Amino acid sequence: MNSKAAVIDGNLAAGEIKAELRARVERLAAVGRRPGLGTILVGDDAGSRSYVAGKHRDCAEIGIESIRVEFPEDVTQSELVLAVEELNRDPRCSGFIVQLPLPPHVDMRAVLRAIDPDKDADGLHPINLGRLVLGESGTVPCTPQGILELLRRNDVPITGAQFCVIGCGTTVGRPLGLMLTRPTEHATVTLCHEATVDVAAHTRVADVVIAAAGVAHLVKPYWVRPGATVLSVGITRTVEGILGDVHPGVEEVAGKWTRATGGVGPMTRAMLLRNVVDLAERRAAAAERPVPSITLRQGR
Amino acid sequence: MNSKAAVIDGNLAAGEIKAELRARVERLAAVGRRPGLGTILVGDDAGSRSYVAGKHRDCAEIGIESIRVEFPEDVTQSELVLAVEELNRDPRCSGFIVQLPLPPHVDMRAVLRAIDPDKDADGLHPINLGRLVLGESGTVPCTPQGILELLRRNDVPITGAQFCVIGCGTTVGRPLGLMLTRPTEHATVTLCHEATVDVAAHTRVADVVIAAAGVAHLVKPYWVRPGATVLSVGITRTVEGILGDVHPGVEEVAGKWTRATGGVGPMTRAMLLRNVVDLAERRAAAAERPVPSITLRQGR
Repeated sequence: MNSKAAVIDGNLAAGEIKAELRARVERLAAVGRRPGLGTILVGDDAGSRSYVAGKHRDCAEIGIESIRVEFPEDVTQSELVLAVEELNRDPRCSGFIVQLPLPPHVDMRAVLRAIDPDKDADGLHPINLGRLVLGESGTVPCTPQGILELLRRNDVPITGAQFCVIGCGTTVGRPLGLMLTRPTEHATVTLCHEATVDVAAHTRVADVVIAAAGVAHLVKPYWVRPGATVLSVGITRTVEGILGDVHPGVEEVAGKWTRATGGVGPMTRAMLLRNVVDLAERRAAAAERPVPSITLRQGR
Repeated sequence: MNSKAAVIDGNLAAGEIKAELRARVERLAAVGRRPGLGTILVGDDAGSRSYVAGKHRDCAEIGIESIRVEFPEDVTQSELVLAVEELNRDPRCSGFIVQLPLPPHVDMRAVLRAIDPDKDADGLHPINLGRLVLGESGTVPCTPQGILELLRRNDVPITGAQFCVIGCGTTVGRPLGLMLTRPTEHATVTLCHEATVDVAAHTRVADVVIAAAGVAHLVKPYWVRPGATVLSVGITRTVEGILGDVHPGVEEVAGKWTRATGGVGPMTRAMLLRNVVDLAERRAAAAERPVPSITLRQGR
């Protein structure tokens, strides 16, 4: 006589976060520092266009200014780098993203590396990821940040808890492992991937399972310890619709879970907005601080 | 009737690596590009002095040039940053390190961030750690690199193996987790630390245990699956001598293990030399490459 898992509602949490951000945006706008999100979009890929449009809709909702830069598929690398440098300088732009994928004739890494780390809205610049390894402050990637926020807002304990993260990609699994093992989180983390011999052996002992493998219905009900929290991150588009990494039957076993959609996805979008507002606030604070005088010999 | 664990000998492996490096150094010297290691040492701490002296002894052994920079305890931050910038420019210097700790009046992060990432011999510059998160090439930290090399040279399988890493510090545990989960290694990794509820539950199912907690004799014999490989990284200095993170009784249970000294330590030192030779070779290759001409519109 099991009760079904409580649904962790990403849309609900994202709505709360947007309300909080709207107030912060208004405070910045009141002192002439309205945040702005820049996007660089290349080509006509329908998916990329729809993602970028969604980001600007989110911005409009909370009062963040939109700065859209678009290029045809045959843009050169130097044109892209120039566009990045222009956004680096643009005072209206608090942070920006280059929508991926880029066409194959462009060196994606060189373009991304040209982004000013202090305007890196995605938190995927090597300097920001390096800061995350070192435990220094910096912008952190949106999806793992959204996962942590979702857990906190749904009273899922993190410190000392046993996490199983499935999938070691650069946007979710790798930074999530780093975030979960920071002294501020101090979770115990097992990182699994396609070479893991027996993933179920790791999920079965986990308090929290994060499925970010991009394999439809990978996490089966019998993989889950009764009462555990299970978050679905990866999605697979099929003719029958969007399938998540977590089998629907997990609802009968887990204590809390996200559905395939409406869970982590909306949080990823909300965290991009938060990164932009954070960057705008930091920039405003830095502008107010007096420029430190340089002395040859300083002590404290 | 157990046999004792085979000893993984770090001095032996480091000796082999030094012989390989000596040949590479000679090839570089023959074309006028002898590698050079720079060190910046501040103050009179006996430990720091002895570490730096050891690094230069290692260099002399294989023909790497030594560039020593020393400052008194009351050095200013700007003097240190100037010294870093000088080594960044010095053509004799292939790579360099700033010996830590620095005095408390110095902003350590600012000094380390001034290091040219392409001369970062320790692999601890945020850009190089960020590259590691992203799976891009760059210099990687010496101790985790030495651990992987030691396992490979002692025929310990890595891909698909279950690792338990104890300790999530920035020089060992955090980068080691990233290195082990790269597609080139693809190990399954559990990251434990002082907030982990039951570390023994994780070590007991591991094929390889890496103890980098800095807690003397933390890993007890009953924590280890018979036949597993156990590496001791952390050391504690006591009046009775140096104690490792692994209890000596583990020798009766493990298949392979390192002693408290003569295991990972010599490998860390050898990997610093390898980083310097790698950087010198990369610099030599870049100097030979023709400077690419810049075209406004490029395809391929």
